[in-house]
Amino acid sequence: MSYRTEKDTMGPVQVPADKYWGAQTQRSVDNFPIGPAGSMPLEIIQAFGYLKKAAALTNAELGVLSEEKARLIARAADEIIAGKLNDQFPLVVWQTGSGTQSNMNCNEVIANRTHVLAGNQLGEGHPDIHPNDDVNKSQSSNDTFPTAMHIAAYKKLVEHTIPKIEQLKDTLKLKSEHMMQVVKIGRTHWMDATPLTLGQEFSGYVSQLEHGLKALRHTLPHLAELALGGTVVGTGLNAPAGYAEKVAAQIAELTGLPLVTAENKFEALAAHDAIVESHGALKQLAVSLTKIANDLRLLASGPRSGIGEITIPANEPGSSIMPGKVNPTQVEALTMVCVQVMGNDTTITMAGASGHFELNVFKPVMIHAFLQSANLLGDACQSFNDHLAIGIEPNHPRIEEHLTNSLMLVTALNPHIGYENAAKIAKKAHAENTTLKAAALALNLLTEDQFNQWVDPSAMTGMIP
Amino acid sequence: MSYRTEKDTMGPVQVPADKYWGAQTQRSVDNFPIGPAGSMPLEIIQAFGYLKKAAALTNAELGVLSEEKARLIARAADEIIAGKLNDQFPLVVWQTGSGTQSNMNCNEVIANRTHVLAGNQLGEGHPDIHPNDDVNKSQSSNDTFPTAMHIAAYKKLVEHTIPKIEQLKDTLKLKSEHMMQVVKIGRTHWMDATPLTLGQEFSGYVSQLEHGLKALRHTLPHLAELALGGTVVGTGLNAPAGYAEKVAAQIAELTGLPLVTAENKFEALAAHDAIVESHGALKQLAVSLTKIANDLRLLASGPRSGIGEITIPANEPGSSIMPGKVNPTQVEALTMVCVQVMGNDTTITMAGASGHFELNVFKPVMIHAFLQSANLLGDACQSFNDHLAIGIEPNHPRIEEHLTNSLMLVTALNPHIGYENAAKIAKKAHAENTTLKAAALALNLLTEDQFNQWVDPSAMTGMIP
Amino acid sequence: MSYRTEKDTMGPVQVPADKYWGAQTQRSVDNFPIGPAGSMPLEIIQAFGYLKKAAALTNAELGVLSEEKARLIARAADEIIAGKLNDQFPLVVWQTGSGTQSNMNCNEVIANRTHVLAGNQLGEGHPDIHPNDDVNKSQSSNDTFPTAMHIAAYKKLVEHTIPKIEQLKDTLKLKSEHMMQVVKIGRTHWMDATPLTLGQEFSGYVSQLEHGLKALRHTLPHLAELALGGTVVGTGLNAPAGYAEKVAAQIAELTGLPLVTAENKFEALAAHDAIVESHGALKQLAVSLTKIANDLRLLASGPRSGIGEITIPANEPGSSIMPGKVNPTQVEALTMVCVQVMGNDTTITMAGASGHFELNVFKPVMIHAFLQSANLLGDACQSFNDHLAIGIEPNHPRIEEHLTNSLMLVTALNPHIGYENAAKIAKKAHAENTTLKAAALALNLLTEDQFNQWVDPSAMTGMIP
Amino acid sequence: MSYRTEKDTMGPVQVPADKYWGAQTQRSVDNFPIGPAGSMPLEIIQAFGYLKKAAALTNAELGVLSEEKARLIARAADEIIAGKLNDQFPLVVWQTGSGTQSNMNCNEVIANRTHVLAGNQLGEGHPDIHPNDDVNKSQSSNDTFPTAMHIAAYKKLVEHTIPKIEQLKDTLKLKSEHMMQVVKIGRTHWMDATPLTLGQEFSGYVSQLEHGLKALRHTLPHLAELALGGTVVGTGLNAPAGYAEKVAAQIAELTGLPLVTAENKFEALAAHDAIVESHGALKQLAVSLTKIANDLRLLASGPRSGIGEITIPANEPGSSIMPGKVNPTQVEALTMVCVQVMGNDTTITMAGASGHFELNVFKPVMIHAFLQSANLLGDACQSFNDHLAIGIEPNHPRIEEHLTNSLMLVTALNPHIGYENAAKIAKKAHAENTTLKAAALALNLLTEDQFNQWVDPSAMTGMIP
Repeated sequence: MSYRTEKDTMGPVQVPADKYWGAQTQRSVDNFPIGPAGSMPLEIIQAFGYLKKAAALTNAELGVLSEEKARLIARAADEIIAGKLNDQFPLVVWQTGSGTQSNMNCNEVIANRTHVLAGNQLGEGHPDIHPNDDVNKSQSSNDTFPTAMHIAAYKKLVEHTIPKIEQLKDTLKLKSEHMMQVVKIGRTHWMDATPLTLGQEFSGYVSQLEHGLKALRHTLPHLAELALGGTVVGTGLNAPAGYAEKVAAQIAELTGLPLVTAENKFEALAAHDAIVESHGALKQLAVSLTKIANDLRLLASGPRSGIGEITIPANEPGSSIMPGKVNPTQVEALTMVCVQVMGNDTTITMAGASGHFELNVFKPVMIHAFLQSANLLGDACQSFNDHLAIGIEPNHPRIEEHLTNSLMLVTALNPHIGYENAAKIAKKAHAENTTLKAAALALNLLTEDQFNQWVDPSAMTGMIP
Repeated sequence: MSYRTEKDTMGPVQVPADKYWGAQTQRSVDNFPIGPAGSMPLEIIQAFGYLKKAAALTNAELGVLSEEKARLIARAADEIIAGKLNDQFPLVVWQTGSGTQSNMNCNEVIANRTHVLAGNQLGEGHPDIHPNDDVNKSQSSNDTFPTAMHIAAYKKLVEHTIPKIEQLKDTLKLKSEHMMQVVKIGRTHWMDATPLTLGQEFSGYVSQLEHGLKALRHTLPHLAELALGGTVVGTGLNAPAGYAEKVAAQIAELTGLPLVTAENKFEALAAHDAIVESHGALKQLAVSLTKIANDLRLLASGPRSGIGEITIPANEPGSSIMPGKVNPTQVEALTMVCVQVMGNDTTITMAGASGHFELNVFKPVMIHAFLQSANLLGDACQSFNDHLAIGIEPNHPRIEEHLTNSLMLVTALNPHIGYENAAKIAKKAHAENTTLKAAALALNLLTEDQFNQWVDPSAMTGMIP
Repeated sequence: MSYRTEKDTMGPVQVPADKYWGAQTQRSVDNFPIGPAGSMPLEIIQAFGYLKKAAALTNAELGVLSEEKARLIARAADEIIAGKLNDQFPLVVWQTGSGTQSNMNCNEVIANRTHVLAGNQLGEGHPDIHPNDDVNKSQSSNDTFPTAMHIAAYKKLVEHTIPKIEQLKDTLKLKSEHMMQVVKIGRTHWMDATPLTLGQEFSGYVSQLEHGLKALRHTLPHLAELALGGTVVGTGLNAPAGYAEKVAAQIAELTGLPLVTAENKFEALAAHDAIVESHGALKQLAVSLTKIANDLRLLASGPRSGIGEITIPANEPGSSIMPGKVNPTQVEALTMVCVQVMGNDTTITMAGASGHFELNVFKPVMIHAFLQSANLLGDACQSFNDHLAIGIEPNHPRIEEHLTNSLMLVTALNPHIGYENAAKIAKKAHAENTTLKAAALALNLLTEDQFNQWVDPSAMTGMIP
Repeated sequence: MSYRTEKDTMGPVQVPADKYWGAQTQRSVDNFPIGPAGSMPLEIIQAFGYLKKAAALTNAELGVLSEEKARLIARAADEIIAGKLNDQFPLVVWQTGSGTQSNMNCNEVIANRTHVLAGNQLGEGHPDIHPNDDVNKSQSSNDTFPTAMHIAAYKKLVEHTIPKIEQLKDTLKLKSEHMMQVVKIGRTHWMDATPLTLGQEFSGYVSQLEHGLKALRHTLPHLAELALGGTVVGTGLNAPAGYAEKVAAQIAELTGLPLVTAENKFEALAAHDAIVESHGALKQLAVSLTKIANDLRLLASGPRSGIGEITIPANEPGSSIMPGKVNPTQVEALTMVCVQVMGNDTTITMAGASGHFELNVFKPVMIHAFLQSANLLGDACQSFNDHLAIGIEPNHPRIEEHLTNSLMLVTALNPHIGYENAAKIAKKAHAENTTLKAAALALNLLTEDQFNQWVDPSAMTGMIP
């Protein structure tokens, strides 16, 4: 590989000749060989593209940067937004906790790219646009990185995570409606209980996801607050008056998202409670999805020695050794994603609590975990929807068998003969392995007509007249 | 101790003669000797009091229970609400996961207590009011226990946790306003940075708590949803028409809380996402409080070899061996509470994800952890407020010393001489252990007048004209 | 209540006249009204009894305390060890993070109690024995509290937690041996798989607990290291030469536990990795117990519409509304304990990571969580053993039914006819809801004799000739 | 892209023409578009290489596979081990929870690769070697995937994680020895305390890591146990007698690691407590490293308004806006890694607890999190060692200043004048902002000679005669 020399305030550094990045990026490459290269999420790089463009335009508007420079910076930033410069961002999550090195990576790439956009050769001559004085003007890593965190997180949630979960919820709702008359045995404590319909069972899943989505949406306003304009410690040092509001509006326009400037910039740099808050809602959804996915796994179990009350699509052979086996693999993928999200919540909680004074320096690990959760939940819900949920069907013979056998239908007798007499019937039927009706009649607690009238599983669900 | 014989559907049990509880409570005492006796939170017992009274009144109103029985049940329930029967609830958290045994404890105590209220002797004759058929009428453990969870959690938050945190936030806000002109060095990465005021620093804390309280309040509507009326599996079997809405309204009236019937009862029994959601907000507040308390601990450190920029009240001798030592003990208590809350969040997350089919059977551990968090956070914020926050004062000499020495004031020169020249000044001053001004003048990068004009810590905060 | 006046270096304090504690204890009572009173675990109080006695005896032996004083201190300490002074320890977990206040509570109680033991009235005259200069001689809170933590934790594990888990493991082993010939269907992915015996299934549980107990025992040597002798910061300031080794030997003799002085006292004060390490093993056991308890819950599910392959004891009525219902309540208690332990692990992890410089100030919350886990796991395993495990029996008809129906017996044909042909048989049987044999013969892939010879569930387990 | 048709028991699938994988791999690619492609760790792929080679050789030795087939399979497996076929493994972590699809990916790639190695064209003719019947002979996904987990985890720990942490520990030990005479102020509760030496302080760090490494090594024997030979459910169905022991020995020889066959195969498939156990030790090390890294961050803080008692290397410019700023970036990277490891522990704990019956189906997420932790801890310790630890130097002037000012040197007077008198001196010096000596003399509690003799910071450390 051939190299060119770049410099920063600490001196010269050798940089790959064909890369736009500069000295500080290269120092980070050299000093942080931790985990796979380039692990800083591309969503953050793109968010920096929006941010740098908005800052340049705002700086120009406020008269602290020339129109010419702003135009060039914006062009380079547009390329970043479009993903054309993705290979110029080699840094890892496990760098400085402020993300300074990724901010400088962006500043350096833009500065060198504008040099080329202006008709020069990379590495020849001195760029007119300085990474710190121009690209980073009116900014600090301390306010740009959290701004990029919020842009990326907000965008991911509203464009990916929420719609995918929504879609799964809609599918489950449709299933619930279709199966609203399918009477089946209920189970509490994993023991047979009184009946309900499959549709009622599924309606609980829908309600969980609706509540979870509402909770997630509640977190968006905090996430919409941008730190930009706080610069180093929140005071806005070296940023012109009016900058914070204008640059937030600019970012909102560029991204199409309702982002605003944070009311309190000191919080916005020193704490990332908005990330903690929003990820808390993702974790809640992971809790809900775990319950739902587990239920579906259990309902589909068998085919002959399990519960088997629903069937799900057979998407692939399930075993390398057991011929003909089909497994609930989408359930497994989704529940694995869910435990990852729950673990990420621990990571984010600890990181969020560990800021000191004017800066939280666990920024990269927080946004990395957040975006992983948001991406995986979205992807897994889409996959679960397409490859499992839409194919769910009731297995009527099995449902009927379980319903008919159940001893807990006896509960319907409570209002008529009292809890203690009803218990006698259930115990007798259980002990003698007979039916409820046989036991009831043997005990002379009611007539056959009364039994037939009172013990009506469909009526017990309240769904069927 | 003397005993009397009580019976349930499994047969006779010996019960302490002076206790109101019956056979099922005693079985639980005998079968679950796990941890200290009586660990089921009293808040849950009280919530059951409200619930049983409301159920009795509603049952009477709907014509399924006699007025006479309802009146007696309500009287006994009032005694439970008032805490007069606290010694009648010996059960532990680590019982059946549906809380059935605590529901039956309540049913049995009320039944026997009404017997006495009606003028009989405990253990003599047969109570007119049956624990299952009357006290538990139109109910199941499966809908009563989660209802009690929501009543207890909601009440605790709005009557204890929220006001206590609010009070601490108000104190910090007052401090922030009082110290808004106290210019001090900022710190990022635990390294000296550009200045801000103490008041600005504290304003970040206030903003964190405001956001956290807002997040907590967002969770209240989900928590306001009551399961009651779902009975066994959510279908409302054996409850009269209209019962769910009426009983929720009754509970709302008795408690003065805006509680409502849950739209979907299947979720309300099978999942406790509302508890997960609301505790997530408590965890977020624990994250914020950790950051705030840590900062105060650090700012008060020393008195001579630490940061020492604020003083806090000396409430007690700090050491059994070092005479005269005073420690930030309120910080320590609060941060210990915060890690407990964070651990409780893991417990609640796991428990919340572990429901199956029609019932989550981790109810007691969830509400136990929830109430512990809500109680401790409230108590600790009150204590922290009274014994620490209200006594915070700036330590001006120390603040001044740190501010004057800082090299990062050089940042104010960026817009005038550029980042690279400014860096030269800072590096020279650091290497030669001299002042910024001396280094700047030695490098001939500006005049003394310019330095004095441009490097003005107060101006750098944006707070002081 | 009547009061007397006690003093410390900060001045006079009113103390209940009948209590032995002094000024510093009272200040803590007043300053930390957080959670229920007296929450500092009694195990820690008892450990302090051992420690104070050992310190007094060692101080006397090394000539820095009079024999007379040592004897009196030892007498008072013996009373603490015996639990006779439990009502003299009103402090909470949520106090100073070093536990200084509980150390002083102990010093003060002993000092005043020796005054009475010497024939004086409490509150009259001045005790000869000073809480700091005598009872706390050669000690600091910083080394006594962690010493008490290790004594209490070690003692609890070897006297309670380990034997109780051991007992459950032995019961499961016995069950495994008894059921080693009971052939049943295996389940993977919650789907029917090839057979094994119930005894084999249970042998996995035994192996898990054996590995977990081994892991727990591996942590004992770290826990056996005592901080005592490090005094304030680990240097042993103000302790006589040889003190650390001698006092540890003394504690070992008094407790009968193989405790030793920590090789490095700086670690022993500043970090509690031994607690983190040992609780990590408790958490591992909680993971194992969760798997085991869940399996038993599932195997016992039904009785008619679940798996139902084993029966477990019916200890109590399971439902307040469903007559005759019996639930796996011991499973529920144990798994609730397990999620509590897992949450405690998060608390202990965070607290353990939060020490600074010479002292970790999350000591009380760490030992509180540790002892809660150790107590609850021991109690719950005992209860689970007595009320569930010893009563497990196979449900042969159900086991037989599931085994006979299974399609996965087809796996035995792989070596004879290949995976793909075997798959054809399984798929045909599934699609046509027929038996494997019928499908196999219809496909002409083998003879009936071959089928009968090759598909032998008992032989497939490898357990039965 | 051009495609060829591959088949499995479910029918034909289109596969990229130039890839060795077959139908089942392609189904997984199509059905699990969750997260970035190819996220299944390469360490697992390599472990499968060892495993498939060992299985083939053992099958041949036991006479159930021809020598010819075994030789070809071994050649293909060698290419996998060498990393030459890395682009043939496109599957993700978020697939079936048994890892079946990755096992089949390996089986298919080997089968097709042997076809080519035997001189044929990929996609032409029918391979002699069948993915299930030959490559997977005597195996199931259920025993191969956990075997690959253990091989990969064990190898990573002993070849990467342990040596890197060991190296850092050695560096800190060297620093401790070099600085053993540097007397400095101690700090407890973040408040000034009695002195110790920098070397003593560092010795605590060394002791923590030594204990942590010991704990980690204790987990290796459980991790050394291989599931292979258990096949589907642990019974060893379809594997020849003696296979389990022989194949483990073969793997041990190929890898050079002391791996053995698991004594209980039922545990080995159904639970991954060995992963839980071993990651628990990684988490403990993360706790220790957090404490150590935080201390170093604090000791190096400043340079002028922090603690500043050590200096660390300046590796890169620390700020995009504050010229000349240098930050403890290696500390930040390491502590971010540590919170990731702590979060991974939650993930692994939950996943480990979630197995049912004969199989835990959270295998991929568990090993993914484990390897991430093991890799990141190793990488970060190396980086921290090279770029920070080896460059630590004491900052003598600052150390001296803090030491001299401290009021807590007064503790040395306790044995001479008692705790209460010593407290008077400290309080007076603090209140009047004077020196201890001045306060002591003013109080007439001792002579100047006595003060000079008794208050000797060096002597107080016990390190300096």
